[in-house]
Amino acid sequence: MKVAVISIGNEILLGKTTNTNLTYIGEKLAKIGLDLDVNKTIKDNVEDISSTLLYFWENYDIVITTGGLGPTNDDITKQVIADFFDKKLNFIDEIWENIKTRFEKRGIKIPEINKNQALVPNDFQYLINNFGTAPGLFYQNNNKLFFALPGVPTEMKHLLDDKIIPILQSKFNFEPYFIRTIHTYNIAESALAEILQPIQIPSEIKLAYLPQTGRVDLRFSGQNQTLIESTINKISPNIKKYIFGFDEENVSKLFHNTMLQNKLTISVAESCTGGLVQKMITDNSGSSKYFLGGIVTYDNKIKEKVLHVEAEVLNKFGAVRLL
Amino acid sequence: MKVAVISIGNEILLGKTTNTNLTYIGEKLAKIGLDLDVNKTIKDNVEDISSTLLYFWENYDIVITTGGLGPTNDDITKQVIADFFDKKLNFIDEIWENIKTRFEKRGIKIPEINKNQALVPNDFQYLINNFGTAPGLFYQNNNKLFFALPGVPTEMKHLLDDKIIPILQSKFNFEPYFIRTIHTYNIAESALAEILQPIQIPSEIKLAYLPQTGRVDLRFSGQNQTLIESTINKISPNIKKYIFGFDEENVSKLFHNTMLQNKLTISVAESCTGGLVQKMITDNSGSSKYFLGGIVTYDNKIKEKVLHVEAEVLNKFGAVRLL
Repeated sequence: MKVAVISIGNEILLGKTTNTNLTYIGEKLAKIGLDLDVNKTIKDNVEDISSTLLYFWENYDIVITTGGLGPTNDDITKQVIADFFDKKLNFIDEIWENIKTRFEKRGIKIPEINKNQALVPNDFQYLINNFGTAPGLFYQNNNKLFFALPGVPTEMKHLLDDKIIPILQSKFNFEPYFIRTIHTYNIAESALAEILQPIQIPSEIKLAYLPQTGRVDLRFSGQNQTLIESTINKISPNIKKYIFGFDEENVSKLFHNTMLQNKLTISVAESCTGGLVQKMITDNSGSSKYFLGGIVTYDNKIKEKVLHVEAEVLNKFGAVRLL
Repeated sequence: MKVAVISIGNEILLGKTTNTNLTYIGEKLAKIGLDLDVNKTIKDNVEDISSTLLYFWENYDIVITTGGLGPTNDDITKQVIADFFDKKLNFIDEIWENIKTRFEKRGIKIPEINKNQALVPNDFQYLINNFGTAPGLFYQNNNKLFFALPGVPTEMKHLLDDKIIPILQSKFNFEPYFIRTIHTYNIAESALAEILQPIQIPSEIKLAYLPQTGRVDLRFSGQNQTLIESTINKISPNIKKYIFGFDEENVSKLFHNTMLQNKLTISVAESCTGGLVQKMITDNSGSSKYFLGGIVTYDNKIKEKVLHVEAEVLNKFGAVRLL
């Protein structure tokens, strides 16, 4: 089953918006066993949208678009979709009522222009949007599925999670796809590869080396979970001293778990980091069990007064980096 | 001039990595007047890379790839590029010396596998990478330009900024492209559009409505700066009460400027936000002029002791949200 996502929006190509929608869709599809094959990000213009739809609808089984479903002139995706599939647009009362209710709740008069958003191409199903005014769209032709989603992340996520994933799961039996990651540090990508070279990795497992600043992740993926586990068990002892965690574990999570396991508590005094360390600690849900509180001493006078850091030391360093 | 970026890497399609490289490239190209037309994100496999190269090299003037230039088996981009352009790979001593020096500085023996990274396709120029072991690649054929960059963001940014942008600027005279943004709040996208409908926007200016949670941005873009300015001046009075800032101004920046202009100082006591507010304040460079420091009282006992919040009040609310 081949899957494509088309991201529509000049703001992504201009570097004004990062395509976090793609990350979210890729991750959610992988979780149900659907491997996203390709993404194309294009501008909001008729020609680019039409030609991209033509290519992807011909070559892929599932096509998802994001963006361009808003009520204003620059939102042209729906009209182009209707033209591409050669479908008339129908006005749907249920959508209009939903949009009106959203405006009424905010106590605002509804602009006429929002009527656009109640239009749905013939033979398409609509997916009511509880977080915004643009409904999602769904069209099936034989075994091919087409979905259109709004670009606002909260609305896109809602429609993907609550409408599209259930539709996909009701129509297909996916083989789940497994991903496991080993996080390493203090070793170069190539040196890791040299150590692992003599170890046979089964061909059903894809091993990727993902270098990042200060560390290298090893990502194992495939559909045979047992084989992935046994491969990781075989590999880990050889690179033990470079491993600092697995999967969702990062430095912050490891710190969190260590505090809980050892029943420790902590207070923090920060200077130049300006609250960042405490923010990182409290980002871990449950950190109130060990994090009591702390201070940020940004001004030198406060450093002296509260932390009793000597003025002389402060002068010597300009500002003392407490953390 | 048509420009395409090809992002190569399964990790993006699996949702494990967000494509911030695309944001960076789009923004930097826009700044020199180059309008990125399209991005395609594909997997690290020979067929996808070859077919994408074929299509983009035929249809675009400038093609930039990111990803897959590492030393390990899963990094296949360079070999596919060499095959696609029908060029032999040559071993380049200067690159090998650069890689060796990087390893020597870290006091590590260099793995043989890194020799791959000193290979450059015939007729290609190489762009020495000061932040990593993978050099960038550059190829020109008539008026068409091809660049290959590593996927690690620090390395990609370095090569784009220090090598590619100067090459592009030396070869072409770009007309700069201007983008200005009005940030609005407390009004729906469609209601804004209704107010602006009677106002004639010159056809050379593209106006985009960008709804985000809690606000709508209006983005004006085009090559005629004076016309963009005068359009913004014409429009602004009509939506004055909804505007909270322009361009790079966000709530944090506005706060920063207000503090400086009024010569105020501030201390912060946070609870549930756990340091986030102080972090946001100190993210503004120059905030030491008005931000003295603050405390995070996460535990109830600390709240009582330091902030003298009565135990009774704390019990009533479970935890008091100070901020």
